[in-house]
Amino acid sequence: MKINRYEDISQIEREAKRDYIDRHSAFVYCDDKAVKGEKFKVKVKVGDEYKHPDDFDHYISWVQLWDGEKMLAQTSFQAGTLGNAPCQAEVDLYIVPTSKSLKLMAHAFCTKHGLWQSDEKVVEVSE
Amino acid sequence: MKINRYEDISQIEREAKRDYIDRHSAFVYCDDKAVKGEKFKVKVKVGDEYKHPDDFDHYISWVQLWDGEKMLAQTSFQAGTLGNAPCQAEVDLYIVPTSKSLKLMAHAFCTKHGLWQSDEKVVEVSE
Amino acid sequence: MKINRYEDISQIEREAKRDYIDRHSAFVYCDDKAVKGEKFKVKVKVGDEYKHPDDFDHYISWVQLWDGEKMLAQTSFQAGTLGNAPCQAEVDLYIVPTSKSLKLMAHAFCTKHGLWQSDEKVVEVSE
Amino acid sequence: MKINRYEDISQIEREAKRDYIDRHSAFVYCDDKAVKGEKFKVKVKVGDEYKHPDDFDHYISWVQLWDGEKMLAQTSFQAGTLGNAPCQAEVDLYIVPTSKSLKLMAHAFCTKHGLWQSDEKVVEVSE
Repeated sequence: MKINRYEDISQIEREAKRDYIDRHSAFVYCDDKAVKGEKFKVKVKVGDEYKHPDDFDHYISWVQLWDGEKMLAQTSFQAGTLGNAPCQAEVDLYIVPTSKSLKLMAHAFCTKHGLWQSDEKVVEVSE
Repeated sequence: MKINRYEDISQIEREAKRDYIDRHSAFVYCDDKAVKGEKFKVKVKVGDEYKHPDDFDHYISWVQLWDGEKMLAQTSFQAGTLGNAPCQAEVDLYIVPTSKSLKLMAHAFCTKHGLWQSDEKVVEVSE
Repeated sequence: MKINRYEDISQIEREAKRDYIDRHSAFVYCDDKAVKGEKFKVKVKVGDEYKHPDDFDHYISWVQLWDGEKMLAQTSFQAGTLGNAPCQAEVDLYIVPTSKSLKLMAHAFCTKHGLWQSDEKVVEVSE
Repeated sequence: MKINRYEDISQIEREAKRDYIDRHSAFVYCDDKAVKGEKFKVKVKVGDEYKHPDDFDHYISWVQLWDGEKMLAQTSFQAGTLGNAPCQAEVDLYIVPTSKSLKLMAHAFCTKHGLWQSDEKVVEVSE
């Protein structure tokens, strides 16, 4: 299956394409370091500079947060939760790391344009 | 189906029962007022004074956020996401209100002790 | 939260109300007896005599199968999976009973008309 | 992210590896032809010759059914739904095709061994 990836949109000339790629891309935001056994906040947000529609027939239906090959959590949205207007789907997940590092990655699913995968965010976990 | 509800634990004598009720109860935290068409953060947290296990055979598997009879979002967790130790499942959801008020309510599902429903949190939405 | 229940529609005079109740109600279909440790098929179907829309802004978003207070499985649908035309959402789930009886119950969530609960189906489980 | 794929296990010498690959692989079973606008049954099953554990810390947590880049449905299981013994996770989904063909594919997620993708099953849809 095709899984779409973020591309550096500053290198893309056509505005429509920059918009298309950016508004579908999942981004993972969190601190660079975590502490073993302590709650750690991870934001997953879809779109950085551009907004995605929240139309009934075209919206971000769910996001997943992964640590390497292990899924941590999935949030499913209903169409309309973002007001039926362009917006950036967003959720803050709280996890508790127990290993030496995290390799965080998010998936986002658009009901019209398929599955999108974020870049990997590596987090160092100290004792 | 039985849906469990929070009871004021300060009125409960037995520590074990206070712990049982508190650690399973879903709580909704957000501002009292929102603005129509603007993103609004809603925290759903399970447990207030006590922590729930995150054991493989006993954990909080999912929470849902509702506005009256309309579901807004659902977050599913894997066992171990909270470090396999007692913790409070937590997620910040972002919604965009379009009506005059919100009647927010959360459900939380414990794999051993069933479905729990938060109190309703009413939010006034201004133009 | 209000959870809607099936009512015997043969007792209801108004056609529109019979249609409304029937098309939203979840039904559990399975054999009356199961064998411990053997796979057992359980059909969950929404609507019996009437069909529910599968419109982008009005569809059956998910169903859950419960055994008493324990959730067994949840199936989420995308709008359009049923062809964007009136239909009955349907899924066959396979479970393996380990207790002496099952008390099966289904929930169905309509994006416009909220949560609906089936009648309970008791299944005797033999060794 | 690594997505695992089925390999023809008859070509694999080591029994443990055949077992590992087979028991994690998702398979899509359905008729070769469907009729536009009519309900169509699609079975998703995990494992063909071998069975996967249903342990609390090691089970098939969910399967998804896709038509090309469009997700149709997701079924999530709780650990124990398959009796806490080796078994093959299984669900029959019902969809209504509206296009000229379907390119069905399933994902299955094992809580220990990550994401697995089925082969694609092409279905011709007649008027």
